Amino acid sequence: MSELKGNAIFGQSGGPTAVINASAAGVFLEALAHKDVIGTIYGAAHGIRGILEEDFYDISQEDPQEIEYMKTTPSSELGSVRYKLANVEDDDTDYKRLLEVFKKYDIRYFFYNGGNDSMDTCNKISKFMQKSGYECRVMGVPKTIDNDLYGTDHCPGFSSAARYIATATMEVYKDARVYDTGMITVLEVMGRNAGWLTAATALAGAKGCGPDLIYLPEVDFDLEQMLADVKKIFDREKKCIIAVSEGVKTRDGKYIPELVGEVKVDAFGHKQMGGAAAVLAQYLERELKTKVRGIEFSLLQRCAAHCGSKSDVEEACESGREAVRQALAGKTDFMVGVDRVSSKPYQVRYILIPLSEVANTERKIPREWINEAGNGVNQAYIDYALPLIAEDAGQPKEDGLPRFCRLKKIPGRKD
Amino acid sequence: MSELKGNAIFGQSGGPTAVINASAAGVFLEALAHKDVIGTIYGAAHGIRGILEEDFYDISQEDPQEIEYMKTTPSSELGSVRYKLANVEDDDTDYKRLLEVFKKYDIRYFFYNGGNDSMDTCNKISKFMQKSGYECRVMGVPKTIDNDLYGTDHCPGFSSAARYIATATMEVYKDARVYDTGMITVLEVMGRNAGWLTAATALAGAKGCGPDLIYLPEVDFDLEQMLADVKKIFDREKKCIIAVSEGVKTRDGKYIPELVGEVKVDAFGHKQMGGAAAVLAQYLERELKTKVRGIEFSLLQRCAAHCGSKSDVEEACESGREAVRQALAGKTDFMVGVDRVSSKPYQVRYILIPLSEVANTERKIPREWINEAGNGVNQAYIDYALPLIAEDAGQPKEDGLPRFCRLKKIPGRKD
Repeated sequence: MSELKGNAIFGQSGGPTAVINASAAGVFLEALAHKDVIGTIYGAAHGIRGILEEDFYDISQEDPQEIEYMKTTPSSELGSVRYKLANVEDDDTDYKRLLEVFKKYDIRYFFYNGGNDSMDTCNKISKFMQKSGYECRVMGVPKTIDNDLYGTDHCPGFSSAARYIATATMEVYKDARVYDTGMITVLEVMGRNAGWLTAATALAGAKGCGPDLIYLPEVDFDLEQMLADVKKIFDREKKCIIAVSEGVKTRDGKYIPELVGEVKVDAFGHKQMGGAAAVLAQYLERELKTKVRGIEFSLLQRCAAHCGSKSDVEEACESGREAVRQALAGKTDFMVGVDRVSSKPYQVRYILIPLSEVANTERKIPREWINEAGNGVNQAYIDYALPLIAEDAGQPKEDGLPRFCRLKKIPGRKD
Repeated sequence: MSELKGNAIFGQSGGPTAVINASAAGVFLEALAHKDVIGTIYGAAHGIRGILEEDFYDISQEDPQEIEYMKTTPSSELGSVRYKLANVEDDDTDYKRLLEVFKKYDIRYFFYNGGNDSMDTCNKISKFMQKSGYECRVMGVPKTIDNDLYGTDHCPGFSSAARYIATATMEVYKDARVYDTGMITVLEVMGRNAGWLTAATALAGAKGCGPDLIYLPEVDFDLEQMLADVKKIFDREKKCIIAVSEGVKTRDGKYIPELVGEVKVDAFGHKQMGGAAAVLAQYLERELKTKVRGIEFSLLQRCAAHCGSKSDVEEACESGREAVRQALAGKTDFMVGVDRVSSKPYQVRYILIPLSEVANTERKIPREWINEAGNGVNQAYIDYALPLIAEDAGQPKEDGLPRFCRLKKIPGRKD
């Protein structure tokens, strides 16, 4: 394989996670270790938009210790973006502009960190560069709390979010039992089309402090059936905790909030979720004449690095490093994936999955991991998820609060 | 001081905290260490209601290791209650019943763990026992995330809640900056009449990741002034984070949710809070034509033992122990308080405050700790609160999740 000398750029796309910066750190640290091949590693501000606008940072000027701190700094330190590239046949403006920027900065390595949409973006860019005869190696680094990427055992970001959700659910369980009056609690968890995160509430259940009912997007939602499920438990125990995915929908495609109002649509044409807990709480309060509390984990669940999973931080970082190593070895058009070698002891290895296979494919919870009634998960899910949250990431603290990274963000732009 | 032999009972009242069980553990461990005087220590199920109904547990039959685990188990393991005793002149039924139960079980020590209302309950019971000629020593153990108890530097429960709120605020801050589009975030924090917890968001600010504006119940709320404050910051930065106490109200006593709907009232005649973030988010979105996210920390903030403060756990436990020690030494009708000897290094000692002084008195943030505009706190608050959250409580884990106590709860009832 011919050695390809030049510069590299890394960008982040889509919603943040607790460990997306750990992937950035992995890419940066590995690239900086190969200065003989990768002259400069740039970090794009707000993903693809930063590249289009030549808004990026020269990472070689950062303090290596601050790059270390990135590993436990949540959200997206460089900034993210939700920007959908047009199909090249419809409009190639952005693609031409990207090629122009890549040529200007001699970008020969492009690393992009994101979910399904981002892998699609990667794939389109790579194809255009190849067609244009511009040699550039493109590697995807997986990221999503939703855990719905094809071909990987799990996705960096998921384990930390699951760890927080399971922990918070245990705490809510204790809180919901403090009075001996009737109480129903509805927990709303993120996850558009896959219920991996919502199912993480079952990990709390494995410790005796979980929800009674779990509703996932994998199963058609039936409001009346749910009411019957809740009533049965509530009549017996005076308590009921329900975990519901924001993405739960009826057989004819209606999301819970749609039962009472309008739903917004984002730049990718996805319906904007959220509000299911509040709507369900109102509904159950009316139907069952008892106090119902709706709790939306909201974005607390996706950036809870203080409760991060150690393996998640390591895998996020290592996925970034692996992307660089493989690109240097001549690979292109792959996403790095995690393959679980063993659960006891927990061991993984890194694999490559063709971008074309990942792009826009969603991986859902297998139906056989969901109980027959469709309102809970079984031991197979627990066995899958519990090893992912076993250890704390050990985030460094300062005065008892998270010590986040402090980047200098020195512009890499040439005028 | 004459030695008073007999049994003891401990109960919990009001909303849960991350460390209310640590106080229970303190009372239990100290009482169990004095079996020569305190024959049996009972734990009342659901506070005063458990005593009235002879529903309590014999703590001496619990595994001491499980009592240790109580220290980092959130919420109220025995169960709590919101039950308001009538004034004895109006109706002495409950008082007579309590005396009957105390006599039946030879209860000579009554420890009650709660906030202002609970200290009022303690005080009323003690007065009645004295008037009836029944010797019983009554001690209050402080508890409230609201931090509004009179006479103590701070209240067990506050520091852990503050630590979680500051940490979560830092994470939200990072998340809110992930896109370069306009974004306003409204954080709603608990606190009915005192802003101590809402002000804890300023600790995140001390680390460069805090809210731009903080609205506290101590300052009359003015919706138009808030809009002007937000607009000024948003126009300049395209981002604005607002922390608002659920208890914020206008000069004429209107809470934020009252601007759009009905407000419920609890058993103590307190208006039920919550919903301020959602209401404000709607209002700001309409007025400023930008995306506004409302986040209610909800009950996640009061039971977040996974992010607990070490000093909080220690002080909650020690307050319980001190209550027992002082009662054994002959004291009655006091609440244990925390006096801060020094902030650097952080050191406290325990003091006694007469119940009559604590009952129904609320301690608020001094006006001089709040900035002139009334939309933030100054360094005096930071210097006060930062030492309280310096160390993590180090909650024991099992499979990466909290290891909560598992009590046997053997009934102590005699029939």
